Amino acid sequence: MNYAKLGRSALEQEQEKCESEYEALKAQGLKLDMSRGKPGKEQLDLISGILSILTEAADCAADGMDTRNYGGLAGLPSARALFADILGCRPEECFVGGNSSLDLMYNTISKAYTHGLLHSEKPWCRLDKVKFLCPAPGYDRHFRVTESFGAELITVDMTPTGPDMDQVEDLVKDPAVKGIWCVPKYSNPDGIIYSDETIRRFARLKPAAEDFVIMWDNAYCVHEFDGDFVPFPDILSLCREAGRPDMVFEFASTSKITFPGGGISVMAASEANLKYMQKLFGVQTIGYDKVNQLRHVLYLKDKANTLALMKKHAAIMKPKYRMVLDMLEREIAPLGIAEWQKPKGGYFISVNTMDGIAKRTLELCREAGVTMTPAGATFPYGIDPRDRNIRVAPSLPPVQELQQAMEIFCVSMRLAALEKLLAG
Amino acid sequence: MNYAKLGRSALEQEQEKCESEYEALKAQGLKLDMSRGKPGKEQLDLISGILSILTEAADCAADGMDTRNYGGLAGLPSARALFADILGCRPEECFVGGNSSLDLMYNTISKAYTHGLLHSEKPWCRLDKVKFLCPAPGYDRHFRVTESFGAELITVDMTPTGPDMDQVEDLVKDPAVKGIWCVPKYSNPDGIIYSDETIRRFARLKPAAEDFVIMWDNAYCVHEFDGDFVPFPDILSLCREAGRPDMVFEFASTSKITFPGGGISVMAASEANLKYMQKLFGVQTIGYDKVNQLRHVLYLKDKANTLALMKKHAAIMKPKYRMVLDMLEREIAPLGIAEWQKPKGGYFISVNTMDGIAKRTLELCREAGVTMTPAGATFPYGIDPRDRNIRVAPSLPPVQELQQAMEIFCVSMRLAALEKLLAG
Repeated sequence: MNYAKLGRSALEQEQEKCESEYEALKAQGLKLDMSRGKPGKEQLDLISGILSILTEAADCAADGMDTRNYGGLAGLPSARALFADILGCRPEECFVGGNSSLDLMYNTISKAYTHGLLHSEKPWCRLDKVKFLCPAPGYDRHFRVTESFGAELITVDMTPTGPDMDQVEDLVKDPAVKGIWCVPKYSNPDGIIYSDETIRRFARLKPAAEDFVIMWDNAYCVHEFDGDFVPFPDILSLCREAGRPDMVFEFASTSKITFPGGGISVMAASEANLKYMQKLFGVQTIGYDKVNQLRHVLYLKDKANTLALMKKHAAIMKPKYRMVLDMLEREIAPLGIAEWQKPKGGYFISVNTMDGIAKRTLELCREAGVTMTPAGATFPYGIDPRDRNIRVAPSLPPVQELQQAMEIFCVSMRLAALEKLLAG
Repeated sequence: MNYAKLGRSALEQEQEKCESEYEALKAQGLKLDMSRGKPGKEQLDLISGILSILTEAADCAADGMDTRNYGGLAGLPSARALFADILGCRPEECFVGGNSSLDLMYNTISKAYTHGLLHSEKPWCRLDKVKFLCPAPGYDRHFRVTESFGAELITVDMTPTGPDMDQVEDLVKDPAVKGIWCVPKYSNPDGIIYSDETIRRFARLKPAAEDFVIMWDNAYCVHEFDGDFVPFPDILSLCREAGRPDMVFEFASTSKITFPGGGISVMAASEANLKYMQKLFGVQTIGYDKVNQLRHVLYLKDKANTLALMKKHAAIMKPKYRMVLDMLEREIAPLGIAEWQKPKGGYFISVNTMDGIAKRTLELCREAGVTMTPAGATFPYGIDPRDRNIRVAPSLPPVQELQQAMEIFCVSMRLAALEKLLAG
């Protein structure tokens, strides 16, 4: 029953049916939050071992340091080695921070504004205009960081192989274009893995701005929920080999490996970049929480052990994604009113509805008790020009609740589509 | 034997004696670090209980939240209440951060530059000139934060009751003067407690700049090492009562209560200030480490229990300070070549030598294996105009090593004084 092929009366009939389904679901009085990529309780319970991995004073000595005391700005050496193992870069390229990689990203951009990056002629706050590339749909928090500093956000289209590199290569000819946000593996929200060709083209970029920065947020570097770990090239090596080693800052964290609120984060960059940034970070802090860094080193051990843990997360995550995808396939696919990617990792399912009904769909969801990421959030300035992208975040609710939420989501989308078709 | 009263030949005799003492001490080949106010191992071992205070998943629930997951930008409510109890302000005035209060201070100044504070007409980076008041001797890391943003640092003299308030009241008439650094209790390095009169005059300041900020770093709020807790007025209430509630940001941390590298920090300010700052911090991070905040809540419990813990720190600290003061009294006082405060809390002993020998004293110390905070560090731009202030940080070394270090320090100071007197 493709809606586009239905006549007016058939649409009206379908609308009536939908409305009564919607009212029945609404009457359940649900209150579900699917707005963010939060791990569920069952995932957090997996990690309880990390709570008691350090219990005595003597446990806190590592790498010739007392982790409890001041010092170690770049992080505990063994934590730097752990992230290097996971990301495929070198320990001396890793700066290990606190519980938030977003904080490291914000600090990088903030310092670019107040002090400039390694190759900046002057701080960005002294420039008339700073432009930043935002592949969209993308991560709203990325866009907001650069927006908050007054940068002009320029949308770059996403393709099934990553950002449209023809656009990127063209845009970086403008010296006011200072950087680009990337989630290269299981992109937020599309779940796309950038192709080798895309990644190579990134490393070979020749931006007009000497201080152009690729903000490479490898948030989902080991976050397969379906199938085995997918190897991924080290962007630092590629940029080094292409002769522009200082063009990229890579970020990652254990937020979705251990505890979202109590993990550790990393900023990986060339040694020249880290040397420069450490001079600036050294004014800001004496060092991040090395005790918690040590907990993570002892608990995660290395990449192999981390991947084994990610398999346990996957066993919890996969049924949730499967359920969302199955329901979309069954309830929505035949109607021809939306399309979506089928990711094997990351935290989201990105749904593109027919144009002009994303906002209305989520309004109907909210009225029936299901909160989702606001429509538009995945685009610069929160404005989706086609009003069609919806980010579904299935990780938090238990499967049973997720099913109820998805029933509401599907009927809301049908209703929104019918309203639109009948009005058009 | 007051050096000033000795004739040339007596001075030369004393110099010869000093040199042989110095060479003998140097020959021991010591390597001691007294450069920073780091707690010693024995103090850290006191706190081991905090390592195992959370061991199971169920322990991580608090205040209706799962501390392990994302959220809670302003901090765990019970952590906000704990700091409010300790500081004497209100929980809703407390924003609880990560392991570094310096990071919160830096962020406050950084945001003033990039976005402006609540009452700023424009971000400070858009102003031709920003001046910042630096009571000196003071804390080098404070001065460096504002220096790193290009502010002009203006020295304010310290008096035994705090910064010279006549100078402060005069200087704040200049609208380019945007703030002042303060360590109001056991000031770094003098160990001075600001008098009630000084504090009242701070609260009643009428700066020309609407966005003038008192950076009130209450780092040593409960850090008595000799005698009972000294009650201290709540600067937030005083500023509120004086009609300028948004003029102050107070900072504190558990760095010298639990673990320097793994504690928690607080920024306390008016609710209007916090509301404004949370909008800015919300772009930077989803929240700080609530798991570690909960560890601190369960371990420290409240102010009374925290004060009991501080008594245990004091029992370790007091003999070290006693030893330093006794040796200065015995070795240096009779010579008339230096003066010092006798603090009952904080982490330092501030020594003022005769003019022009601080640098040379520390050079001699270093050559004999004892590293101390560089001379000048306690003044803006690292320049002590009289080259006389030396910050002694006795907390890290065990008493035995401290005694050796102090022997080297005293003989180095004598040598430097003799060189100066004989050259003059």
